[in-house]
Amino acid sequence: MPLIRFGVSIEKDLLIKFDRLIKDKKYTNRSEAFRDLIRQELIQEQWQGNHEIAGAVTLIYNHHKRELVNKLMHIQHDFGQVIISSQHIHLDHNNCLEIIAVKGSPKEALRLSDSLKSVKGVKHTTLSMSSVGNGI
Amino acid sequence: MPLIRFGVSIEKDLLIKFDRLIKDKKYTNRSEAFRDLIRQELIQEQWQGNHEIAGAVTLIYNHHKRELVNKLMHIQHDFGQVIISSQHIHLDHNNCLEIIAVKGSPKEALRLSDSLKSVKGVKHTTLSMSSVGNGI
Amino acid sequence: MPLIRFGVSIEKDLLIKFDRLIKDKKYTNRSEAFRDLIRQELIQEQWQGNHEIAGAVTLIYNHHKRELVNKLMHIQHDFGQVIISSQHIHLDHNNCLEIIAVKGSPKEALRLSDSLKSVKGVKHTTLSMSSVGNGI
Amino acid sequence: MPLIRFGVSIEKDLLIKFDRLIKDKKYTNRSEAFRDLIRQELIQEQWQGNHEIAGAVTLIYNHHKRELVNKLMHIQHDFGQVIISSQHIHLDHNNCLEIIAVKGSPKEALRLSDSLKSVKGVKHTTLSMSSVGNGI
Repeated sequence: MPLIRFGVSIEKDLLIKFDRLIKDKKYTNRSEAFRDLIRQELIQEQWQGNHEIAGAVTLIYNHHKRELVNKLMHIQHDFGQVIISSQHIHLDHNNCLEIIAVKGSPKEALRLSDSLKSVKGVKHTTLSMSSVGNGI
Repeated sequence: MPLIRFGVSIEKDLLIKFDRLIKDKKYTNRSEAFRDLIRQELIQEQWQGNHEIAGAVTLIYNHHKRELVNKLMHIQHDFGQVIISSQHIHLDHNNCLEIIAVKGSPKEALRLSDSLKSVKGVKHTTLSMSSVGNGI
Repeated sequence: MPLIRFGVSIEKDLLIKFDRLIKDKKYTNRSEAFRDLIRQELIQEQWQGNHEIAGAVTLIYNHHKRELVNKLMHIQHDFGQVIISSQHIHLDHNNCLEIIAVKGSPKEALRLSDSLKSVKGVKHTTLSMSSVGNGI
Repeated sequence: MPLIRFGVSIEKDLLIKFDRLIKDKKYTNRSEAFRDLIRQELIQEQWQGNHEIAGAVTLIYNHHKRELVNKLMHIQHDFGQVIISSQHIHLDHNNCLEIIAVKGSPKEALRLSDSLKSVKGVKHTTLSMSSVGNGI
């Protein structure tokens, strides 16, 4: 796709911070970094509407906790519409990292993430809000 | 593990907001929500130090972009120490969701995430900072 | 589901071999082993017909081989109907293990497996024929 | 790596069958098919010795079966040395496809596969014997 070039006005202070960020994040130029910021905004918008989204839910838990594994499994089967597959890493003898790939309704993905988070014994949950790749 | 009970002083306004958050996030009580906040802080700390961490990097990209797939593959093999495995979802004929499970040095995980993000053609990247489960 | 009990006639020699197999495979009794044999037959049948199946394709390849990674990616996107997700393990600096979860038409799964196998540079392929779990 | 060319003597009947197989499997020539046969033999050998191997175990089970999910989880954590990660697919409301990527001792991988297979409620198990990519 052809690139369109245009000017941007920005305060000197803010530009210095932006350039430091670009360097830290290893971007090769300002345009690349700027495009990423716009995409990030578009994705936030998709997650607040009814667009199809994609993303990942991560869980950390101790699989020895009574009934925990069963509960997590039942919740996931209830959200079969929004879950594609999950990846399970045995971190050590007790702890598990589970990464659930989601695609579909943002509302359902958020409900899934909240449901898993509220299960007693789940130590930590994150929700990566990403996109199905169209419109960004 | 036995639970210890203690009092917390908090402004009324802040408590109202906290209770709304608890309800939105489906927590059954304040203690559970409070424990999660503490764990979140501990994980932030682990990622800023040299503790072993776990987490996930998500990528969205169009696999038809020239040389993109090769570049992503080469970067991942250079970071073999911190990558456990990755999960690949074919979103549609063009777009891919790739979720990389990481475990090890937080610095290396951040470097991996930044390296992948800076590859031209990668539309979106997220980094889920989580934990190996000990000390939280 | 209630278990039905019935008698089986079998040559002594064959039974001795069967019992040895049961011991090697750690079955707790003959019925359990016998049920597995029947299920195995049913699955073979599903893969020869038009029933929906599930399974896994594994690949071993050297990702440095010119164009190999791109070709494998393009083939997988052409078979989007039958692929759910794939798991990628970086075995060492050169070698990759890729495990593709498949669900759908047995003919398509076989075509996918054969297409990937015939790509120059793929060192080894296996196809695990399993089932979606119904009717076995 | 340079290719070495040499002659092979083979019965006409067997060659006809071989050529039919090549066509069915979409190989572009006999040499490619022949190399695969040799690699297959080498991998069989690796799995009977003490060489490091890689592969995949697939399981089909009904996650509603009492205690089944817990048992499978506990077994997998006992075999942490040989398991890299696992991929979980929710086939429908009852049935699960779990694919476990293994790397390490062939004896341990076989013991893992047998242990999972013997759990009551597991409907089907397969073991894909593959390789870490070296020496084939």
